[in-house]
Amino acid sequence: MRNVRILEFKDIIDTRNSERPMGHLTPIESGIDIPFDIKRVYYLTRVPENTTRGFHAHRKLQQVLICTNGKVTIDVSTPSEKKSFVLDDPAKGLYVGPMVWREMYDFSAGAVLTVLASEHYQEEEYIRDYEEYRRLAQEYFKEK
Amino acid sequence: MRNVRILEFKDIIDTRNSERPMGHLTPIESGIDIPFDIKRVYYLTRVPENTTRGFHAHRKLQQVLICTNGKVTIDVSTPSEKKSFVLDDPAKGLYVGPMVWREMYDFSAGAVLTVLASEHYQEEEYIRDYEEYRRLAQEYFKEK
Repeated sequence: MRNVRILEFKDIIDTRNSERPMGHLTPIESGIDIPFDIKRVYYLTRVPENTTRGFHAHRKLQQVLICTNGKVTIDVSTPSEKKSFVLDDPAKGLYVGPMVWREMYDFSAGAVLTVLASEHYQEEEYIRDYEEYRRLAQEYFKEK
Repeated sequence: MRNVRILEFKDIIDTRNSERPMGHLTPIESGIDIPFDIKRVYYLTRVPENTTRGFHAHRKLQQVLICTNGKVTIDVSTPSEKKSFVLDDPAKGLYVGPMVWREMYDFSAGAVLTVLASEHYQEEEYIRDYEEYRRLAQEYFKEK
């Protein structure tokens, strides 16, 4: 799907100081493991059952979405494509580029959705009206 | 304590689309909400009970440690000071600057320790031998 793909990160299980595993460390180097420099990090926590978040797209912003605990489902769509991802692995990230509509739901108890973003927060970057999104996205993907 | 402090982030409870809370969103702007640009993000997950991690300091690296789910205890020390922090609030970060020895333990089930770092990974940045650390840190803090 255009402007959407899964990124796989390192999953480092440290056993240096003992024979038993000491947990998992997932490193993400800005501009290396993801295709942009990190200007903003945010995370969603304590999202109640039966809540859907998202309902917007971004004009230029690139993001990587990672579920660092628990599980969440992400639907991404453009006017011509639609895909659904269950994120439940801290070593996998969902890259979402410009002009992709997203909805996030089925947050498990304790789910943490961490998002790395390519720009600082700008409200004018958001497209929150679906009809406006469809019009702009048709233009955008026609030119690509 | 020198080179250590708690940072408080925004805790945004979105109720725009409904009357009930839709969870918490914590935004962190690189270079604005924390005193450096984010070059690296990493997170510790699935750390077993009775595990202590850390046992090192950094020469120049600055980090912010955030517990985005669950709970973890962080001991930070220099040759002349020692402090212990229980992190259990996604809207609080522990800033740890250069030359601070750290140990992390009492990870709860499902705990996620997310770390934002000011530089890319460089093994030569780590000081892992405590005696060497003490010598270098005494020099460092004498000059400050």
